[in-house]
Amino acid sequence: MSGNTLGTLFTVTTFGESHGPAIGCVVDGCPPGMELSAEDIQPDLDRRKPGTSRHVTQRREDDLVEILSGVHEGRTTGTPIALLIRTTDARSKDYAKIAESFRPGHADYTYLRKYGIRDPRGGGRSSARLTAPAVAAGAIAKKWLREKYGVEVRGHLAQLGPNKIEFKSWDGVHDNPFFPPDPDAVALLESYMDKLRKSGDSCGARIDVVASGVPPGWGEPLYGRLDADIAQVMMGINAVKGVEIGAGFRSIEQMGTEHSDEMTPEGFLSNNAGGILGGISTGQDILVSIAIKPTSSIRLARRTIDVEGKAATIETHGRHDPCVGIRATPIAEAFLALVLVDHALRHRAQNADVKEKVKAVPAKAAKAKKREGRKLEDPDPLEA
Amino acid sequence: MSGNTLGTLFTVTTFGESHGPAIGCVVDGCPPGMELSAEDIQPDLDRRKPGTSRHVTQRREDDLVEILSGVHEGRTTGTPIALLIRTTDARSKDYAKIAESFRPGHADYTYLRKYGIRDPRGGGRSSARLTAPAVAAGAIAKKWLREKYGVEVRGHLAQLGPNKIEFKSWDGVHDNPFFPPDPDAVALLESYMDKLRKSGDSCGARIDVVASGVPPGWGEPLYGRLDADIAQVMMGINAVKGVEIGAGFRSIEQMGTEHSDEMTPEGFLSNNAGGILGGISTGQDILVSIAIKPTSSIRLARRTIDVEGKAATIETHGRHDPCVGIRATPIAEAFLALVLVDHALRHRAQNADVKEKVKAVPAKAAKAKKREGRKLEDPDPLEA
Amino acid sequence: MSGNTLGTLFTVTTFGESHGPAIGCVVDGCPPGMELSAEDIQPDLDRRKPGTSRHVTQRREDDLVEILSGVHEGRTTGTPIALLIRTTDARSKDYAKIAESFRPGHADYTYLRKYGIRDPRGGGRSSARLTAPAVAAGAIAKKWLREKYGVEVRGHLAQLGPNKIEFKSWDGVHDNPFFPPDPDAVALLESYMDKLRKSGDSCGARIDVVASGVPPGWGEPLYGRLDADIAQVMMGINAVKGVEIGAGFRSIEQMGTEHSDEMTPEGFLSNNAGGILGGISTGQDILVSIAIKPTSSIRLARRTIDVEGKAATIETHGRHDPCVGIRATPIAEAFLALVLVDHALRHRAQNADVKEKVKAVPAKAAKAKKREGRKLEDPDPLEA
Amino acid sequence: MSGNTLGTLFTVTTFGESHGPAIGCVVDGCPPGMELSAEDIQPDLDRRKPGTSRHVTQRREDDLVEILSGVHEGRTTGTPIALLIRTTDARSKDYAKIAESFRPGHADYTYLRKYGIRDPRGGGRSSARLTAPAVAAGAIAKKWLREKYGVEVRGHLAQLGPNKIEFKSWDGVHDNPFFPPDPDAVALLESYMDKLRKSGDSCGARIDVVASGVPPGWGEPLYGRLDADIAQVMMGINAVKGVEIGAGFRSIEQMGTEHSDEMTPEGFLSNNAGGILGGISTGQDILVSIAIKPTSSIRLARRTIDVEGKAATIETHGRHDPCVGIRATPIAEAFLALVLVDHALRHRAQNADVKEKVKAVPAKAAKAKKREGRKLEDPDPLEA
Repeated sequence: MSGNTLGTLFTVTTFGESHGPAIGCVVDGCPPGMELSAEDIQPDLDRRKPGTSRHVTQRREDDLVEILSGVHEGRTTGTPIALLIRTTDARSKDYAKIAESFRPGHADYTYLRKYGIRDPRGGGRSSARLTAPAVAAGAIAKKWLREKYGVEVRGHLAQLGPNKIEFKSWDGVHDNPFFPPDPDAVALLESYMDKLRKSGDSCGARIDVVASGVPPGWGEPLYGRLDADIAQVMMGINAVKGVEIGAGFRSIEQMGTEHSDEMTPEGFLSNNAGGILGGISTGQDILVSIAIKPTSSIRLARRTIDVEGKAATIETHGRHDPCVGIRATPIAEAFLALVLVDHALRHRAQNADVKEKVKAVPAKAAKAKKREGRKLEDPDPLEA
Repeated sequence: MSGNTLGTLFTVTTFGESHGPAIGCVVDGCPPGMELSAEDIQPDLDRRKPGTSRHVTQRREDDLVEILSGVHEGRTTGTPIALLIRTTDARSKDYAKIAESFRPGHADYTYLRKYGIRDPRGGGRSSARLTAPAVAAGAIAKKWLREKYGVEVRGHLAQLGPNKIEFKSWDGVHDNPFFPPDPDAVALLESYMDKLRKSGDSCGARIDVVASGVPPGWGEPLYGRLDADIAQVMMGINAVKGVEIGAGFRSIEQMGTEHSDEMTPEGFLSNNAGGILGGISTGQDILVSIAIKPTSSIRLARRTIDVEGKAATIETHGRHDPCVGIRATPIAEAFLALVLVDHALRHRAQNADVKEKVKAVPAKAAKAKKREGRKLEDPDPLEA
Repeated sequence: MSGNTLGTLFTVTTFGESHGPAIGCVVDGCPPGMELSAEDIQPDLDRRKPGTSRHVTQRREDDLVEILSGVHEGRTTGTPIALLIRTTDARSKDYAKIAESFRPGHADYTYLRKYGIRDPRGGGRSSARLTAPAVAAGAIAKKWLREKYGVEVRGHLAQLGPNKIEFKSWDGVHDNPFFPPDPDAVALLESYMDKLRKSGDSCGARIDVVASGVPPGWGEPLYGRLDADIAQVMMGINAVKGVEIGAGFRSIEQMGTEHSDEMTPEGFLSNNAGGILGGISTGQDILVSIAIKPTSSIRLARRTIDVEGKAATIETHGRHDPCVGIRATPIAEAFLALVLVDHALRHRAQNADVKEKVKAVPAKAAKAKKREGRKLEDPDPLEA
Repeated sequence: MSGNTLGTLFTVTTFGESHGPAIGCVVDGCPPGMELSAEDIQPDLDRRKPGTSRHVTQRREDDLVEILSGVHEGRTTGTPIALLIRTTDARSKDYAKIAESFRPGHADYTYLRKYGIRDPRGGGRSSARLTAPAVAAGAIAKKWLREKYGVEVRGHLAQLGPNKIEFKSWDGVHDNPFFPPDPDAVALLESYMDKLRKSGDSCGARIDVVASGVPPGWGEPLYGRLDADIAQVMMGINAVKGVEIGAGFRSIEQMGTEHSDEMTPEGFLSNNAGGILGGISTGQDILVSIAIKPTSSIRLARRTIDVEGKAATIETHGRHDPCVGIRATPIAEAFLALVLVDHALRHRAQNADVKEKVKAVPAKAAKAKKREGRKLEDPDPLEA
């Protein structure tokens, strides 16, 4: 398939450039009969949209979504759902300089090398603005997963530059611009971001995403494994350079007796697997963590070359996020939901007739802290 | 697509179970006219095969590959290349116990939940033995990449349990069972593995893979990004729990001025991007790092449940690798090569007519250490 | 893939319902650098649009196309091209009756059985109006095929109900509402259609489509054969019940000496193959013929059932084509072009390095009549 | 996808050349838990295999199938099912002449133009022998369709050269080499074939295939329509030049009142639709008819060119079918079954939760003749 369609059965085909007249997507394969209106989608777009605080880009886009098809009398019909978001605040004059030189660390260079032409206005197709259609599609996926299976997909900021944020609670994650799982961390984050913005530099971040309630059995080994497909979409999010499932890179230094999650009739005793074994969901929470690199568009002067290949320096002014990670939480949630809904459909296509002969191992409902946060280092025994 | 086909244009469809009569694959889409014989494939299979040292499983499989189709008078014809590997050393009687209970951390449980049935002999389909067909296919991919573009794909062990291995040289990587880039590390690794084996426990590992010579332009944003597709196949390798491109998780604590690779007419000044920007290759080395969890099949007793859902303990005897990471290097190389060849074909399908108007930024040939190893922390200026 | 994306590399994802606010598509994989504007697309939409004569539906839609993405400064950028067509003349009140009963021969019944819900307004998703986005995408495909390879894709009406139309010339095919290859046939067709319209009944049609200038080598056996993919898209056009390539059903009664096209250094001596052998283009004209059934929405009373399963009669008033075949010519052209561009890209992906060692057999330029028309019965020798 | 994988969820990837050491396929996506052994597959292979009468090629291949994977203790496990058929009777020396010149009407020419290389032994990849793996895969599809839905897929010869065969009964279709639905026709067919064989020429054929018991709702409009996907596989069978669904090309001259199948609470009154409306199954029999061209490998001298492009004549000796249509019946059945099983899975993936609110229209069980044969011209009213 061409590169702008995601998924096998529940597919999302996006289009648009940062400063084009509109961006959007076509969601195909959505099961019919689900209630759906723009009100179901807009909240996730609002969480992602720019201009909501001084810590993110000051571009003002309302990101209002219009449903063009696939819904009749308030319900999905099973036909493609087209979503359109008109652009309202494009200032393309800011980008003359960018059109001539390459920003270090930016896709400017590679798009031009690949296609021989690029739309430089606002980063064109490579802009993080193009995550908006996926967030909109993800809202549909989340709704179906919740209504059909009780699956919840939630994310939070886990680290901002050097500032690690301990998981305290999901409450209040969305009450500030940073999505931290600890309301007390907000003051520190604001102070850090204010200093960063003044310095003209940028920083990275870590985002954790969790899906709860996923039934055992989703995932299609060997090459449509659930963890593999999650890694695919996560690494595909702008600026992501690393993906972990469960214990992730900590697995390297774990022993088998430490890493492998023991099972009892009452449930798994830990979740180093991050809810996936052999590429198939276990029924435990699915735990994903991603590393986001610092923004490449910064005000500080950097060595580069121009389109002629000559040495140049570049300072990027205009409107940019000093840390794209701040707005990445709803994006990561959306992509996780899109992978899950696709695998829900793929699983029942092949296995709808499988009779459950095995007693399910419950996820450890009593140990919410462990499921929800990233504290997997201390696998605590069930009886502890 | 169903889950056992990998790739879009250069596709690999594998089949087989650990103790079935044969395993193999069909490689479709290979360009015609390339010289190919079993001798081109066997060396990579030999690097992966079991039983070559006391540090890996003692199962004896020659893993001899037979080419069944797609080659005429020593050249590929453009039609599917079927590769067959007969099984010679299956001892399925060892697996009665495993058929009744679930090994913690193993896909036993999830396969049975998904399909309602599983082949328990040697892990069935979920066995790491099933990476052999992909390694064979990868050898074809590597050969074409080398002959057509001069691309080299190489990997090495970077960490074994707690033992980090500094990159010294590619020389001698293949002269011992561990694939370390430092011959002096072998003694330490042997000693560590001997102790581990006696303990009955298992450990994790980190593997680094590097592709050199990849031209700029490969990768299909937004959802067929090169880094995303690499993450997909790497996370899909048995036991992998994390994937990094370039600086990976270190990006979180880097500043933009530190992470973004500056460019000069003589070349990039660093490679934190790992050779990929915006999902498209830059022309620098592609740097991938993966985390491998400790083996789940261990001799030590573990709490688990049986297929009735009742509490049980399990000790796994039989023939298992105490660290699957030891044999993972050729596997990771193969999957990276498979992604690259697929994107080489996809790129020229769409962009064969693009005229190079932009002067290429050379990869920094003089800085082999930086390209080859993982020492990206100190982006050293070109003139240093 | 979900059902609303067509193609492998050059893909078209359509959306919309007959009376929805808009219809459109996303064209992905288009090679970059081609000049493109709405003016390149509009003429084909105009040829297909309703309301242009008394012989077709009287619905008035301008079908004006807006390009939302993928074009920068008048050239394609290689990113998705989104095309939007706003609906202007929807009269959904006409459809109350249709919502309660099923039109014999219409997709009313099957959509409701499949999805449990349907949008009855104007046929919803099953309306022939949904061929408009494909026609728009096809205009892009045609332009690229023409500019890159000199391929021309043309169609004409070959039969309207009982009226067979002999091929005389491509000239004037587009100067009347019927697309006949014989200007002298127009009066007869008008008279026939006037009588048909008055009767309240409907009729079928045959359309021939020809692609000239296709190089040898396009098509991907065994399951991506060029003829197979053409049959797929043609049978997928609304109301099509049969597809032929070359001699088609006449092949049944031909002998091998009659059917198989002999070759000489000056060219093929006939074209019963319709330009495709073994699923791969020969270099001769590609000849396709399709059978279109009579419209199911007719004014005459028919026996049917209602949504409760009770016996009913139905007469369909409102605005309908008495012969959908009349407007099918540009649709069939578009789909043929879409298959060809996809295969052009697929072919060069795998085979860009194939060196032409075989001398091409020229298509018979001197025998335009035979190539263009359907008179293949009398394979006339080159020297005749 | 590359060209040798068929299907979306239930996929078949074939490999092999006519005279290679083996041919076979990988069937992926088969639902788990179904009883399966080679005995379920062999009968269909036996119906297709060569050398069973004097009317077909005298090559002797037992076509014995070996199941290499995907079955454990006699049941499918949901993992890929690999099927292997070893070649036993290859006489490649016969093909020196063919390697130098092109047989008119044969894929010799196009394979060489496409790939620059070809395996000329026995037609290589383009041989009809390569339908054997699809027939084997089709046997699995048929078994699942029968057990899960009661679907039966059956075919018969409908015309051999000029000899039309009236449908009398399914009984005895398989008791002779021709698969005719009229036992009394066998003598005529034998006599015709004996004469044809002596003449050195070849002839075409028509095959009809019928699927009974398909539930309403299968098919994925707009581009995964059931009729479109059937047309794709049928046109992809060697030598097929035309495909019809239901009334097919007769639709052209039908009026709407004649063609559109009226519905009553007791059932449809005719089946001109061939069981598919709007690309979705209606619940009636699915009726498919295909045109097969005369074999291109004939003993009579024909004008052609050699690989240097020079004029030549060619007579094809060796072992060839004078009418490939004779053995095409089980092939067409297999491909129809493969499309149906794929759509069964696709349908329930998206629509498993659809509640049947519409009363089904029964297929007309009492009118077997009409459903089974091709006599659709006279839509006879239910009460007649």
